[in-house]
Amino acid sequence: MTMKKIAILGSTGSIGLNALDVASSLGGLIDVIGLSANRNIKMLAGQIERFRPRVVAVGDENAAREIAGLTKRHGIRVLWGEAGLVGLAGLEDADVILNAVVGSVGIAPTLAAVRAGKTVAIANKECLVAAGEVITREARRSGSSLIPVDSEHSAVYQCLKGESLSSVRKIVLTASGGSLVDMSAVDIAQVRAAEALRHPTWKMGRKVTIDSASLMNKGFEVIEAHWLFGVDVDRIDVVVERKSLVHALVEFVDGTVVALLSRPDMRLPIQHALTYPDRMETKVEGLDLQAMGPLSFEKPDYERFPCLRLAFDAIRAGGTVPAVLSAADEVAVEAFLDNDICFGDIFRILDEVVAGHQRRAADSLEAVMEADTWARQKAGELAGEFARRG
Amino acid sequence: MTMKKIAILGSTGSIGLNALDVASSLGGLIDVIGLSANRNIKMLAGQIERFRPRVVAVGDENAAREIAGLTKRHGIRVLWGEAGLVGLAGLEDADVILNAVVGSVGIAPTLAAVRAGKTVAIANKECLVAAGEVITREARRSGSSLIPVDSEHSAVYQCLKGESLSSVRKIVLTASGGSLVDMSAVDIAQVRAAEALRHPTWKMGRKVTIDSASLMNKGFEVIEAHWLFGVDVDRIDVVVERKSLVHALVEFVDGTVVALLSRPDMRLPIQHALTYPDRMETKVEGLDLQAMGPLSFEKPDYERFPCLRLAFDAIRAGGTVPAVLSAADEVAVEAFLDNDICFGDIFRILDEVVAGHQRRAADSLEAVMEADTWARQKAGELAGEFARRG
Repeated sequence: MTMKKIAILGSTGSIGLNALDVASSLGGLIDVIGLSANRNIKMLAGQIERFRPRVVAVGDENAAREIAGLTKRHGIRVLWGEAGLVGLAGLEDADVILNAVVGSVGIAPTLAAVRAGKTVAIANKECLVAAGEVITREARRSGSSLIPVDSEHSAVYQCLKGESLSSVRKIVLTASGGSLVDMSAVDIAQVRAAEALRHPTWKMGRKVTIDSASLMNKGFEVIEAHWLFGVDVDRIDVVVERKSLVHALVEFVDGTVVALLSRPDMRLPIQHALTYPDRMETKVEGLDLQAMGPLSFEKPDYERFPCLRLAFDAIRAGGTVPAVLSAADEVAVEAFLDNDICFGDIFRILDEVVAGHQRRAADSLEAVMEADTWARQKAGELAGEFARRG
Repeated sequence: MTMKKIAILGSTGSIGLNALDVASSLGGLIDVIGLSANRNIKMLAGQIERFRPRVVAVGDENAAREIAGLTKRHGIRVLWGEAGLVGLAGLEDADVILNAVVGSVGIAPTLAAVRAGKTVAIANKECLVAAGEVITREARRSGSSLIPVDSEHSAVYQCLKGESLSSVRKIVLTASGGSLVDMSAVDIAQVRAAEALRHPTWKMGRKVTIDSASLMNKGFEVIEAHWLFGVDVDRIDVVVERKSLVHALVEFVDGTVVALLSRPDMRLPIQHALTYPDRMETKVEGLDLQAMGPLSFEKPDYERFPCLRLAFDAIRAGGTVPAVLSAADEVAVEAFLDNDICFGDIFRILDEVVAGHQRRAADSLEAVMEADTWARQKAGELAGEFARRG
């Protein structure tokens, strides 16, 4: 492949760190020209020393001053706040924008990158969950490519290489089952953060680990798949594959099924997105088909993990409902991680927020962000109530 | 897709019948302009009534007279013998030649089709096993496309869609294990035809069913894969997947593995070859991932099934050795199907024929056919000896 210039939004998070690892391993093929971090200024300063980007973005003005002070001899342009992220996302000579920011703060930068016709490697879930309609519409207009970084969507994307979307009969996303897969409904309701954070197969950020435990994450992935691949939600299935070796399967109209497997290593889908359409070597081993033991697929339990059902209902309802679900989940999971509420309260909050929402069209960033703001407030109130009740 | 004109060499065999089934189900998209049969003239006459080809080829002059008599009101051109097959393979306005002839008699027609720059759907194993070097060289020269029909190679071909051959780290062909998979070495040696013909998952012709039982078929597929995909034999693996749902896996240089799964239905790879690059609907169901139960992969047992090792050794030796192995196997399996020899004798014959062969370059059809003739005679002699010994 020829050298690519990339900007990484959210370079100090789990995906960002893996992306820098991939960039290092690809040597001169990847030039990191932009980085961003919200609060972890020390780590960002270290990344700047190593990768020498030309532009960085940070959370606020104080952080901007701090990072400018720490790295002044490199003469880097320092941006801050949401405008900073948007600026980084539109960086003129970037070939690929990797959006690895967590939360709905990632939506506006993606939209900016898409409007600038960039190739966007999307690791930020909220972009497509909350604003999938707007972002995919703008991508069609500008000719921007959206390449998923999530292992499941990357797997679907790879299964579809050389195929036409009109040949797809069904998309099947796999779930590991999360940290609570074998627990009874009664016990699940009472789980606290420390327990839910023990994911069996993947090392990920805290928010997504909790969303994996509730299968909310898988639900969001169904919504993302709907927008990324233009496939009706009734043709998207979820199965549990506990080893996290099969990441997705695509069934075609002739009855053929293509599956993508690999060790659960985020560097693979990240590298795929950064080097697409080329496929570059890694040191990641293939699968030892004999040693790995049998692969089996189970139906997810929608009773014990009702968040998954919420996601299917939300995309069927359409409009601002997925945005509301996504924003409310951010608030509820934060409250859970702060040990304010227990696991069962997450679903109760989401269910109540969605039930109280007046659905609107989600045809503009403003409509999406308005629904987001409303949902956060409502979810915050409910989390407070649940916390007081104990 | 736009309408394609096809000629089917070997239309009364298992693959040929399935191909006609596919052609019927695709309605006006496939125009069958040529058919051939060796001896089954009645069935061929029925196919002519139904598909109205313009040219047919049969085994010999008598058969030619018979078919001309049976179908004279249609004014079909009737060819016969090897020259007839070669003529059918070069049919001027055919878009795709499906070579479903069994045995090395299929080599010359494939070479003719390849030289005429046709797209050749290859179901005849011997083409690539015995003459892979010549055929792939001529295909590169003429720009002819070779599309495999065998389920395993079709699976690899499909896994490689949109990918570059230089990205391949390993090709893994699956084997059902055949009808004798759980039998002891001592019992395997004594098996007679009726038992070996009970294949657990695939309905196929008799020769290939026996070759599946000995894993010779899988060995031939390794050789075919080497020629079709230009991959060194050390990067081709065989695993046993007993359900015959996973047909092949390709591991790429980044450690990603793409697998192709489907119900074991030959109409799928046949239709794939006839409609490529399009993918058309079928009534074949996808997989029921939950109901199918766990998938597991086992190492094949090279001790109990030494024919598989013979194939690896043959392609490593190169030149005319694979052609010799293939021709000797035709003779040995025929003797076995005639109940002249028992199962263990097949390996003994092949091993002895290969050991007695003076390897030569396999760079021309003549060299290949000369080795073929020598091997048949030698194998015939040995089969006679084993038969007499009982």
